[in-house]
Amino acid sequence: MVGNELRNEVAALRRAAAVLAASDDRTRQRALFLMAAAILSSREEIRRANDEDIAKAKEDGISPSLLHRLEFTDEKVATAVKGVRELAMLPDPIGRTLVKRELDPGFVLEKRTFPIGVIAMIFEARPDALVQMAGLCLRSGNTVVLKGGREALNTNRVLCRIILEATAEAVGCAWLLGIENRADVDALLSMEGLIDLIIPRGSNSFVRHVMDNTRIPVLGHADGICSVFIDESADLDMAVRISVDAKCQYPAACNAAETFLVHEAIAARFLPMLADAFRQRGVRMHCTDEVLRYIPDGIRATEMDFDTEYLALECAIRTVSSIDEAISHIARHSSHHTDAIITSSMENRDRFFSLVDSADVFCNASTRFSDGFRFGLGAEVGISTSKIHARGPVGLEGLMTTKWLLSGSGETVAEYSGAGGRAFHHKDLI
Amino acid sequence: MVGNELRNEVAALRRAAAVLAASDDRTRQRALFLMAAAILSSREEIRRANDEDIAKAKEDGISPSLLHRLEFTDEKVATAVKGVRELAMLPDPIGRTLVKRELDPGFVLEKRTFPIGVIAMIFEARPDALVQMAGLCLRSGNTVVLKGGREALNTNRVLCRIILEATAEAVGCAWLLGIENRADVDALLSMEGLIDLIIPRGSNSFVRHVMDNTRIPVLGHADGICSVFIDESADLDMAVRISVDAKCQYPAACNAAETFLVHEAIAARFLPMLADAFRQRGVRMHCTDEVLRYIPDGIRATEMDFDTEYLALECAIRTVSSIDEAISHIARHSSHHTDAIITSSMENRDRFFSLVDSADVFCNASTRFSDGFRFGLGAEVGISTSKIHARGPVGLEGLMTTKWLLSGSGETVAEYSGAGGRAFHHKDLI
Repeated sequence: MVGNELRNEVAALRRAAAVLAASDDRTRQRALFLMAAAILSSREEIRRANDEDIAKAKEDGISPSLLHRLEFTDEKVATAVKGVRELAMLPDPIGRTLVKRELDPGFVLEKRTFPIGVIAMIFEARPDALVQMAGLCLRSGNTVVLKGGREALNTNRVLCRIILEATAEAVGCAWLLGIENRADVDALLSMEGLIDLIIPRGSNSFVRHVMDNTRIPVLGHADGICSVFIDESADLDMAVRISVDAKCQYPAACNAAETFLVHEAIAARFLPMLADAFRQRGVRMHCTDEVLRYIPDGIRATEMDFDTEYLALECAIRTVSSIDEAISHIARHSSHHTDAIITSSMENRDRFFSLVDSADVFCNASTRFSDGFRFGLGAEVGISTSKIHARGPVGLEGLMTTKWLLSGSGETVAEYSGAGGRAFHHKDLI
Repeated sequence: MVGNELRNEVAALRRAAAVLAASDDRTRQRALFLMAAAILSSREEIRRANDEDIAKAKEDGISPSLLHRLEFTDEKVATAVKGVRELAMLPDPIGRTLVKRELDPGFVLEKRTFPIGVIAMIFEARPDALVQMAGLCLRSGNTVVLKGGREALNTNRVLCRIILEATAEAVGCAWLLGIENRADVDALLSMEGLIDLIIPRGSNSFVRHVMDNTRIPVLGHADGICSVFIDESADLDMAVRISVDAKCQYPAACNAAETFLVHEAIAARFLPMLADAFRQRGVRMHCTDEVLRYIPDGIRATEMDFDTEYLALECAIRTVSSIDEAISHIARHSSHHTDAIITSSMENRDRFFSLVDSADVFCNASTRFSDGFRFGLGAEVGISTSKIHARGPVGLEGLMTTKWLLSGSGETVAEYSGAGGRAFHHKDLI
């Protein structure tokens, strides 16, 4: 798209955002059901587009795992459509009253939830992700620019058209814009004032590129360097079980563990147990000298290993002399995503909970639980490692801002000023 | 300060942040009382430093209003100290449980409030602001870099030393760093990873400079172009009263009104009334041609007038043919800080509340009410026009983030996966 043309299209989304934000709950619910029905009734058209993408991808020799993500199978379509209908049944996120306070009799202040406005979502080559993202924005009253992975170009184009055609009349505005070129993504990054929030998903380097090249707030995370600390009082069988789950259950996920910190008091007993379990699953172990004493077939670790997100069956292992050394290792090396302690000591659990400054801090559970669905948030927008706005797994709530609404009957600040002025009584009504 | 030296000092604040965040409520309360007592018992030393600043400022011929803000009078000291003690009595903002959810029996997830970490606060030449800012950070468990206006250099230096000496032992860390040079402020802007949030106050151009030159999140606002729309059903006497308050009660404030939008159906009756009231108070009126018919002594407005924050007894006035024209004027020209409608129609109030996308939207009340104290938030950090994190007047809550804490007994994601896996029951406990 030519630069100015894209800018005009995003400016139109900004105007549409006011319309969508003012739409009522039933209108957005109805639109979501229309969206679900249109996807089902256009199954053949979507399939043809997806087949084209798959044929092209095979020609290009893409990896089996990417091909798997690209395929929009009947099962995935059914799950995506079910997700859209479930979104419709969630309570309306718009207009929730968070504060209701009488400043003075009849002079009422409310703080209510309100859509953020225009959101740009950039994500990987999964057509089902497009459907979920579009549904989340429609439910939350935000207009959206969607950019999916280029491998899914044809599928995404068809999906965007079908979704918009099915819903635009019901909500009274064109609330969705699909873009296709990477160059357009870079153009979006400079549209502060038009775009309110960017949610990038994908490779670390891509998310980092977005964060480093825009003044628009970004919700997400680049690295996921998660640690598991095995304390001296840990149940060692439990520690092995959790370590294996955290490392091996899905190593490509951001919430998989990369670093294992082992209290030196149990190193001689625990490290051989851990190494056995990891060897069986083919995990490459980067070990400090201390650890190599107990895992002689390990690879000698460099300092860089503790700053590496392997996203593979590979990990770094070191010993620590105390819980505080573990905490300070995490402060220095963790990406503040998810860190876990395995311990029988409630005191140490509480110390770890209090001193580890990460979005998710776990005790005696796998780091892999860090996920919106597992947390019971419903659909997930992404996982944020920012401390501002939303932190950890983010659901619909992360797509909302608030507005302060004050209703009076002619009050002036002059009346409430100086000696003898009226006083506020600040009475909370909820 | 030399660049590396400052970086090391901020890195030390980052380590101190973990200690302060883990401190208990009584420790921080006690520190606040020690801080209040130290300011009172060091009254003479503070007075001498403030006298020096005042003498220097008079030599430099600074404006009477700046001189007034600079003076740390007995009354201001007493108010500041009272504010610090009141902060101590507010409920502890750390560790409030926002979500408590059983994922499965005995497997409990909590979302708790937690300090953001290291905050940089840059503010105007008011020593009382330094005391308030320091108190807010101590109460909320955040370490802080404070930079006050250069006119208050000596007063600020003494205050920072007294506050830190009185409290560091009680909280177990040096949690406050005063800096004095503008060059150091620019160095702070590049310290992402060390500083979590910047709160700048001061001139529009300074706040804009901060926002444009850092990747660290910024809480605040640059412009405050606030509008008052007088609808056709407005009580005209009330409309005059509110307009005068919004424009004249304190014209230098960000929540003072700059623009008046008048429904054309009442222009002939209302504009002469408004002009009379404004003339009495010496308000310069920039009027469109339509408005000049009723205010012949007005100044002809240019389009730029509707994008200007006068911060003085000066305003821009135009007519609109409908509430929707007023709303779209506000969308184009407002800085999304505070906008008000004067109307007798509840329908139009609700339309304005729903479609105006500003932090504060008022009906039949002066824009000047946009303020943390008036809103009942206690001490105010500032007013945010961002839609991310905190919007509108921001109290202690804006200095907090959250942490997800999960406590289990060896749970793995593998157990909860696939056919026959365990299911989450997601039972909210609060």
